[in-house]
Amino acid sequence: MKIAVIAPGMMGAAVAQRLHACRATVAVTLEGRGAETAARAAGLMQLPSEAALAGWADVVLSILPPGQALALAQRLAPVLVPRGKSVIFADCNAVSPATARDVAAALPGIGFVDIGIIGGPPRGDDAGPRLYASGDDAPQLQDLTTRGIDYRIIPGGIGAASALKMGYAGITKGITALGSAMALGATEAGAADALRAELAASQPEVLRYLQRSVPDMFGKAYRWVAEMEEISAFLGDIPAAPIYQGAARLYERIATDPDSVAKLRAFYRKD
Amino acid sequence: MKIAVIAPGMMGAAVAQRLHACRATVAVTLEGRGAETAARAAGLMQLPSEAALAGWADVVLSILPPGQALALAQRLAPVLVPRGKSVIFADCNAVSPATARDVAAALPGIGFVDIGIIGGPPRGDDAGPRLYASGDDAPQLQDLTTRGIDYRIIPGGIGAASALKMGYAGITKGITALGSAMALGATEAGAADALRAELAASQPEVLRYLQRSVPDMFGKAYRWVAEMEEISAFLGDIPAAPIYQGAARLYERIATDPDSVAKLRAFYRKD
Repeated sequence: MKIAVIAPGMMGAAVAQRLHACRATVAVTLEGRGAETAARAAGLMQLPSEAALAGWADVVLSILPPGQALALAQRLAPVLVPRGKSVIFADCNAVSPATARDVAAALPGIGFVDIGIIGGPPRGDDAGPRLYASGDDAPQLQDLTTRGIDYRIIPGGIGAASALKMGYAGITKGITALGSAMALGATEAGAADALRAELAASQPEVLRYLQRSVPDMFGKAYRWVAEMEEISAFLGDIPAAPIYQGAARLYERIATDPDSVAKLRAFYRKD
Repeated sequence: MKIAVIAPGMMGAAVAQRLHACRATVAVTLEGRGAETAARAAGLMQLPSEAALAGWADVVLSILPPGQALALAQRLAPVLVPRGKSVIFADCNAVSPATARDVAAALPGIGFVDIGIIGGPPRGDDAGPRLYASGDDAPQLQDLTTRGIDYRIIPGGIGAASALKMGYAGITKGITALGSAMALGATEAGAADALRAELAASQPEVLRYLQRSVPDMFGKAYRWVAEMEEISAFLGDIPAAPIYQGAARLYERIATDPDSVAKLRAFYRKD
């Protein structure tokens, strides 16, 4: 099984390195990428372009910021679609079930698996994140479990794995958004110390969660904007969708405003 | 110190009963209220109307659903304002700092304390909720600490206690909203079992929090609608305000839709 990983970002490169370490045949491309990507991809087989990867691979793992998921499928369609069932495209991105179906529709006639990744990039000898998979073709990637990947098939067809990812990220990254919004509001209103003391006394687990998750978010906030928008879309007719539009706008602000980051760092300091 | 509590709802009646049990002089009115209120107010001194209470009391504790806070102050103004500094009005409601200031502005020239109540109604011999208080007149109610009330003055003037309450409720009731939204979304998408299992494995504290807080919310969802709108207003220029508009719409749905309640009950069952 020849596996292409597009792209070798933080998660993609770590998954590719894990596959490589477990003797899978895996390749990436550095086309259009910088020095940091090259460092993360050190030791991996490299092909000159996305198109070359798509022609070579039996399996393409798409691991991207969610806003880029559909565009990748559309770019690769001219190479992948003529190959029919001889190739499997697995969308592993944090997208809504509707977006996952759009990605599948952009690649008619080829193998397709919907994957949702839960947990951080694999490191060292850890178990790594869970790759939840759904859709009729999901069993064809079962051998990933012999290559260091925690691959788990769930029922429900294309969209179910994405729905699981949305639900999980909507809770975990949503809590981080709430904690950020309220810390900023209380700081503006001069009530930060009192709020912090009350949380420490009556909600110590919540405060500890936020002391970990808020500072950990600063470097990722820009990536979470599109993910929050996918979660908003996931809610469909459930009238809570504005929650995640608000979270998207908040992460956009945090990604570009050092003053907000400084206030949050002060509020969620550990002492 | 003669204390009027308006109104004897779940929180108001419990605070009044605690004051009464600790030998404070406290009164309520059953004007316009039903049999449940009468049962909660059993044993308390009763006056025939809000206006009579406002003429009698040295201190009026306003404890209401947040959407009714300003209207109460406006109704009582004709009785309270002529009494000047001889009476203190304490707004104890879950309102934004701006609403707290509007309430104060509706009662010019009288004593005013901004109070935010954190925690459930006092029961039996427990410590009861924290009554955080701010504003220049807050020290005048310090004797509440001798009457079974956990009364705590914080700095920051009128609005600070409300801001503390908004920040705390925005986190705690916000988490309940996220957990409800994502459980409904995952259930619609057929991914409920997988999401529940993943939360149990990797976020057990969050799942336990939601297993307590979501079922506990059903009977209160209708009251939380206006509170979420106050929290949205609290955020001002911070671009996260839609988070709490979405939460308000979600609680509105849950308050009126038994099907949503049934789905949430199934998702957050303890087993």
